[in-house]
Amino acid sequence: MTVSYTLSFSCPDRAGIIAQVSGAIFEHRGNIRVLNQFNDPDTGLFFMRMAFVTDCTRAELERTLGALAQSLQMKWELRSKDERQRVLLLVSKFDHCLADLLYRTRIGELDMEICGIVSNHPKTALKVTELGAVPFHHLSVGAENRAAQEAQILGLVKDLNIDLVILARYMQILSDSFAAALSGRCINIHHSFLPSFKGAKPYHQAYANGVKMIGATAHYVTADLDEGPIIYQDVEAVSHADMPDDLVRKGRNIEQRVLSRAVSWHLAQRVLMNGNKTVVFWS
Amino acid sequence: MTVSYTLSFSCPDRAGIIAQVSGAIFEHRGNIRVLNQFNDPDTGLFFMRMAFVTDCTRAELERTLGALAQSLQMKWELRSKDERQRVLLLVSKFDHCLADLLYRTRIGELDMEICGIVSNHPKTALKVTELGAVPFHHLSVGAENRAAQEAQILGLVKDLNIDLVILARYMQILSDSFAAALSGRCINIHHSFLPSFKGAKPYHQAYANGVKMIGATAHYVTADLDEGPIIYQDVEAVSHADMPDDLVRKGRNIEQRVLSRAVSWHLAQRVLMNGNKTVVFWS
Amino acid sequence: MTVSYTLSFSCPDRAGIIAQVSGAIFEHRGNIRVLNQFNDPDTGLFFMRMAFVTDCTRAELERTLGALAQSLQMKWELRSKDERQRVLLLVSKFDHCLADLLYRTRIGELDMEICGIVSNHPKTALKVTELGAVPFHHLSVGAENRAAQEAQILGLVKDLNIDLVILARYMQILSDSFAAALSGRCINIHHSFLPSFKGAKPYHQAYANGVKMIGATAHYVTADLDEGPIIYQDVEAVSHADMPDDLVRKGRNIEQRVLSRAVSWHLAQRVLMNGNKTVVFWS
Amino acid sequence: MTVSYTLSFSCPDRAGIIAQVSGAIFEHRGNIRVLNQFNDPDTGLFFMRMAFVTDCTRAELERTLGALAQSLQMKWELRSKDERQRVLLLVSKFDHCLADLLYRTRIGELDMEICGIVSNHPKTALKVTELGAVPFHHLSVGAENRAAQEAQILGLVKDLNIDLVILARYMQILSDSFAAALSGRCINIHHSFLPSFKGAKPYHQAYANGVKMIGATAHYVTADLDEGPIIYQDVEAVSHADMPDDLVRKGRNIEQRVLSRAVSWHLAQRVLMNGNKTVVFWS
Repeated sequence: MTVSYTLSFSCPDRAGIIAQVSGAIFEHRGNIRVLNQFNDPDTGLFFMRMAFVTDCTRAELERTLGALAQSLQMKWELRSKDERQRVLLLVSKFDHCLADLLYRTRIGELDMEICGIVSNHPKTALKVTELGAVPFHHLSVGAENRAAQEAQILGLVKDLNIDLVILARYMQILSDSFAAALSGRCINIHHSFLPSFKGAKPYHQAYANGVKMIGATAHYVTADLDEGPIIYQDVEAVSHADMPDDLVRKGRNIEQRVLSRAVSWHLAQRVLMNGNKTVVFWS
Repeated sequence: MTVSYTLSFSCPDRAGIIAQVSGAIFEHRGNIRVLNQFNDPDTGLFFMRMAFVTDCTRAELERTLGALAQSLQMKWELRSKDERQRVLLLVSKFDHCLADLLYRTRIGELDMEICGIVSNHPKTALKVTELGAVPFHHLSVGAENRAAQEAQILGLVKDLNIDLVILARYMQILSDSFAAALSGRCINIHHSFLPSFKGAKPYHQAYANGVKMIGATAHYVTADLDEGPIIYQDVEAVSHADMPDDLVRKGRNIEQRVLSRAVSWHLAQRVLMNGNKTVVFWS
Repeated sequence: MTVSYTLSFSCPDRAGIIAQVSGAIFEHRGNIRVLNQFNDPDTGLFFMRMAFVTDCTRAELERTLGALAQSLQMKWELRSKDERQRVLLLVSKFDHCLADLLYRTRIGELDMEICGIVSNHPKTALKVTELGAVPFHHLSVGAENRAAQEAQILGLVKDLNIDLVILARYMQILSDSFAAALSGRCINIHHSFLPSFKGAKPYHQAYANGVKMIGATAHYVTADLDEGPIIYQDVEAVSHADMPDDLVRKGRNIEQRVLSRAVSWHLAQRVLMNGNKTVVFWS
Repeated sequence: MTVSYTLSFSCPDRAGIIAQVSGAIFEHRGNIRVLNQFNDPDTGLFFMRMAFVTDCTRAELERTLGALAQSLQMKWELRSKDERQRVLLLVSKFDHCLADLLYRTRIGELDMEICGIVSNHPKTALKVTELGAVPFHHLSVGAENRAAQEAQILGLVKDLNIDLVILARYMQILSDSFAAALSGRCINIHHSFLPSFKGAKPYHQAYANGVKMIGATAHYVTADLDEGPIIYQDVEAVSHADMPDDLVRKGRNIEQRVLSRAVSWHLAQRVLMNGNKTVVFWS
């Protein structure tokens, strides 16, 4: 039976990697549908993503790629199309990103399994009521119980076998250890065109600065919620007549589309970490 | 004879300003073609721009508006369509903005009179050779003669009766007194999406930060070349594969269109200063 | 008590309209917050929108404006901020625009009262389940009962006192009389960058033509669903690798944002009909 | 000595093409820097572009690729980085695209050799005067001498060994035979968002239709100047207040950036013909 796979990897650059990997796929009766690659001249790293179909068994494929990975010092990930990534959503009061992600998942646009929603507010604080069968976890948090609450979330991540955590406007400071535990598998949406307007109330900062465009940034989480490798950014024009509330409103649209796009790219293995940056094979 | 005028002004906000001003225009046989206004709730200032035609004499018009201006505490500017603003262009080595402004002026798109070009490099440093009859002033500058060189430029501004100075990628630090002397009539193009990446080599900063969009900013000059009321900004998407040279290349396009648009709006009296911000009536 | 009003009107152009109308507002203790106007040189029509606050009674205001309207031959509309427009949504199987409008209404971004949803499919055909208390009307339709079904819809429009009908991807041909009955108060979202790709399956047409951008168009409904005065359009880039299904997916985002923006502008009286075109005061 | 090459080709799709071609490059001591590919499920064609460096001789490279090309039924093109494509520019009265292409070539952004400019108007009709040493050919044309004039142009194409002809707003109807003779090596800029507004005066058509965005389209020339495989398109927002002259002005910016980008992609072998469409490897 023919199965669709996506392989993504990074490794030290050298001549012949594409030939070796594509040759190995061909030898296993594979047909490459999409191939993206990038050599970073700064880090000397090579990045590649490949979608292919083959009727070879998964075990055989993993054996072959495993051997190749060892010889090329690859950091690699192989997924078949029918494996749906398992996702945990974290949210606070503003739920426009949550509503958007739920709808896109329901109609099959985002190919993921939402296994739970965590909020530091009760379910009644949400505007969206349409959670379906998705379990909702109210885990309130404050300075006094942050460690315990984060441990609960990490417990869910482990118990639910979560592949990706999405901070869908989860307005909480994260501890370094929490961020480190989720490195590379946690995406945040920041309501600012980073690196501008880090810190609190970015739309109010934008208003005070008289900028003519506002933006939002999706990035992998690191210790600092205002930093981390950027996956995607977008902006919209604003004018002198836009008050802070207008910026918040316009920002919601930007946040929704930036986060949903970053998530869809991550799910499709189009995003690879490259130090404090990302490589994004978005076409 | 019917003449087209544009009036722009700001004053403390109060009820009835539009009625008073439009009434005065009507009494002088004027027909308003465009009216833009804005009340800033923060500063309590009112801003207005009005294009109108009338056959009343300019002297009569100025008398009426002068009286109104006094009673309303207006800061105002009245120009007729046939008065072409006089412009001085400052440039260094990169002349893509200069080339663009020259061409747009030549075909009549930018309705201005270019009265001179100042560069801290000789004319031979320019790639564009098509200056026509525009006088070129090579005024080299260094730490040792900055005050004298700036005085020469201010001398040109005075002698040539300059309305607007454009820093078309003039990569020099300006003294506070120079900036102050040109306040409100000097536009700079900054090759960054301010307030991100102030300081030297913004495209290299953008590359190092792994941002997914780069931008440019046109603003009025204040003492700090990296600040000043923003008139217009725009961006373009970039990817991991864009090296600093690619960002510089993409940035040229952004700089050209941002600067030329800001200049065209300024010439049309669409831009009014509002503290550290601007009011831009761009439609 | 001070009330916020919005007045929008069109009338034959002549000198002094702004002075007259703003003068009348001032005499009734009004303070104008926003004024937009446009003179169409082709049709000789004048268009204006004005938001103002006053403590004068509504009856007095209407008397004054009524007299002015008669003398200026105005077609006018006056609404106070607390009057929420009553809306009927028509939908078929694809409900991404419906879901978007419902959410934006629920969080207060769209200031309207959704009084009913009509679909030619049963409620179970919807992906969105979160209709809240909004009545759902399943009115199936075919060639044989189109007249009767349209009469039912018009009955709802009358009985529910509907101000605006939104065709949120309602994929049905409308009769001329139905379209005429709703002229100026019915907005459709067309999944094409009109006038390109009228007719069926526009995304498939776009794919077949190899265009590099796809778009969507919000317009007032006239007899032909593929025509009608355009309110707003937007586009997104596509590539050779985008199959028809990808265009449909990308198109959903465009349709959502184009329709919701057109609706918000209509609700704010920012859109005025001008023959086969519109005047849109979107800033 | 290490040389940079770009190889682009299309051929019937089958498994193993990437492995074969990348293997061949590796065997010739090549290091692939960029690889793009696409399988068209409709036509069953495979497209690929590859930039690589190698110290193998060109003769050896061509022998290897020639053999491969024969076995895979490739239509292929190999260029080394130091071969600059030779270009002929055709222009009428509006020379904003010409001015833009000249400047970008002069500063090295467009890596091409401009070997001549042909216009149906005399040199004095140009606003741009800065042609440098580029030969200018005034070849006036009318219904009576079209065949002869086109033969003159084709003569220049042959004599000057032209790789690419650019119609930089050359507002003439082309004969079928002329278009056919230049198939795949002639790019036109159309001042409309095709397929909307074919034919004369597209900006006036756009104005009459009340569209809210205008665009431009760069495409390969076929017999019909309003058709041909689209390479790139872009748009800008317009409003009810934009008169036809404003659309023409805004359109100039769009035309410049669309044409220059299409040309730069063509020069970099990023554009491959695919029937009535193109494959564009723009990242």
